[in-house]
Amino acid sequence: MQMPFQLTILGSSSAMPTSKRYPTAQVLNVLGRFFLIDCGEGTQHQIRKNKIGFGRLDHIFISHLHGDHFFGLIGFISTQVLLGRTKDLHIYAHSELQRYTQFQLDFLTMGELGFRLVFHPLNFKKAQVIFDDEKLTITSFPLKHRISCCGFLFREKEKEPNIKKEALKSYRIPIREIKNIKAGADFLTEEGAIIPNHELVIPPAKPRSFAFCSDTAYHEKIIPVIQGADLLYHEATFAESEKAMAKTTFHSTGKEAALIAQKAQVGKLLLGHFSARYKDPEVILNEATAIFPETYAVEEDQVYVVVR
Amino acid sequence: MQMPFQLTILGSSSAMPTSKRYPTAQVLNVLGRFFLIDCGEGTQHQIRKNKIGFGRLDHIFISHLHGDHFFGLIGFISTQVLLGRTKDLHIYAHSELQRYTQFQLDFLTMGELGFRLVFHPLNFKKAQVIFDDEKLTITSFPLKHRISCCGFLFREKEKEPNIKKEALKSYRIPIREIKNIKAGADFLTEEGAIIPNHELVIPPAKPRSFAFCSDTAYHEKIIPVIQGADLLYHEATFAESEKAMAKTTFHSTGKEAALIAQKAQVGKLLLGHFSARYKDPEVILNEATAIFPETYAVEEDQVYVVVR
Repeated sequence: MQMPFQLTILGSSSAMPTSKRYPTAQVLNVLGRFFLIDCGEGTQHQIRKNKIGFGRLDHIFISHLHGDHFFGLIGFISTQVLLGRTKDLHIYAHSELQRYTQFQLDFLTMGELGFRLVFHPLNFKKAQVIFDDEKLTITSFPLKHRISCCGFLFREKEKEPNIKKEALKSYRIPIREIKNIKAGADFLTEEGAIIPNHELVIPPAKPRSFAFCSDTAYHEKIIPVIQGADLLYHEATFAESEKAMAKTTFHSTGKEAALIAQKAQVGKLLLGHFSARYKDPEVILNEATAIFPETYAVEEDQVYVVVR
Repeated sequence: MQMPFQLTILGSSSAMPTSKRYPTAQVLNVLGRFFLIDCGEGTQHQIRKNKIGFGRLDHIFISHLHGDHFFGLIGFISTQVLLGRTKDLHIYAHSELQRYTQFQLDFLTMGELGFRLVFHPLNFKKAQVIFDDEKLTITSFPLKHRISCCGFLFREKEKEPNIKKEALKSYRIPIREIKNIKAGADFLTEEGAIIPNHELVIPPAKPRSFAFCSDTAYHEKIIPVIQGADLLYHEATFAESEKAMAKTTFHSTGKEAALIAQKAQVGKLLLGHFSARYKDPEVILNEATAIFPETYAVEEDQVYVVVR
C-alpha cells in the first residue's frame, strides 16, 4: 500500500464569500505529515468538519497577505492555545505577518502562548527550499500577483528500492550486503554466480509531487519549477469572458491555468479560487478541459489523491 | 400583519469551533432594520448562507473583545469594501476595537474605504441608550465576565392606536380630530353625543423586546434591565455538572440562565454559546426547561420570531 499523499480542500472561493465556498485553505497530507496551505476565514471550522487533528498541523504556508488567505490564522492560533498546544508552530509567510500576528496577540493579552510561533520569511525573488526532511522537500517560488505572493511545491524524496523477500532467502544474502544492493550493487553468491541487481530488488515508487499556485496571473516563469508535478492546484478566478478583469487584478482564467498545466506537463490540474460571480464554475472548467482534459474544479471537503 | 421582529442565529458555539456550530453572531431584524450582534469568525459566510443583504447591515454590536465574538469583523468590513459600500457603518464596542481595526486596515493598505466606520464606545459601568430612532431604542448594559462585556436590549417604541375605519365613517370624524383621538381623546359628534375613545380606536400592538446576554456569569443585576423582555438570549456555556468551570471562566449554566429568565419574567428563553464538549446541548436544555419551560437551544440558521 502506498503511503498517503492527498489534498483536502477547506476553501475554494476568492475574496468574496459565497454560501457554499470558503476562502482559500487546504490541508496536504504527505506520508502522515500535515501541512496547512493558506488560512482564510473559517479555516478552523473546516478543519473540524474534515476531522483533521489540530495537533497534527505544525506547518502553515501563507501565500500572500490578502485577507482571504490569512484572516483565519488568529482564530487557528487561539484554538491551539485553548487546546493546550506545546509544540512549535511554524509559519512560512511574508515577514510582515509576524508583526501583524504579534499585534493581535498583544491586543488579546494572551500572554505566553505555551508554544513557540516560528516565523519563516518567504523569498519573493526566487525559488527556495523552505522545508527539508528525510521524506520530502518543500520549495517556495514567486507568483505574479498585485502584491508579493509565493506558490509552494511539495515533493517526496526518492525512496530506496525494497529487496525481494524470495531473493534474500534463495540466494542467502547476508545482512551486510543489503545496503549495497539497495544502492544498486549486484550480488555474488557463495557458488560464485553474479545475480544482477534488477533481479534482487523491487524498484521504489516514483516520488510524487504537488504544486500550489494561488493567487497569480498567467506566469510562464513558474513552469520550470512545477514541471512534471503529479498534481497542480492553479487558481482560475475568472473565465475567458472576464479576461480583462483577470489581467487588471492579476488573476488567471480557466484557459490560462490549463495552458500552464499543459506546458508544465503535470499529471492533473485542480482549479479553484473562483470568483463569487460564478454560481457554478462549469464555464471555467470547460475552457480548461478543452486544453487540458485532466482538469477538475475543486469543491469544499473533497479529497484529491496525488498519484503518479 | 405584524411587522417583523425576528432573530437569525449565525453562530452559537463558544470559543472552540465545532463542525456544526460557528462562534457567536446573530442578526436581529426589527421592523426591517437589521442589526448584527457579535461577529465571530465565519459571520460573513453565514450572512451569505442566510441570504441577508450585506448592504442592510449598518449597525454592529460587539459584546466584548474575546476573539470568538469579533474575529469575523475584518472580513465583514473587507467584503463591504469589495461590494462598494458608501453608507456609514456603525460599530458599538469597547473603544479599543477602533485601534485594533485601524491597525488591520492600515496593514492591509486598504486606503480610503469608501465609507465611514463610526465607532461608538460602550459604557461598561451602567446601562445606557446607544441607539434611538422613531421605531426602537437599543440599550447596552454591563454583564459579568472576565473582561468588560455588555448585553443589549432591543425594544420597539410604543405605537399609536389606529382609528377604526367604520368609526371615521359613521361619526363623520374630521381629519383635524384624528391626532387628538390617537392621543386618547373622546369625540363629540355634530349631534352632541360623546363617543368614548375606546369605541373609536384599535389599541396598538404592545411593543416587543429582545435581550442579548453573552458572555456572562450568573448576574442578577441584569434582571431589572431585561425585565419582561419577550425573548431573551442568554448564554449557557456549561451544564450544572461543570458549574465550577462556569464559575472560573465567568460563564453560565443552563440552570442559571433559566433562573434569570424566570426572575426577569421573560416570554421565551434561547440558550446558546455551548461549549464544544457538548455534542448535543440536550443536558443543558433539560436543566433549563425544568425551571423555565419556554426554553429553546438555538441552532445555526434558525429564525426565532419575537412575539408578545
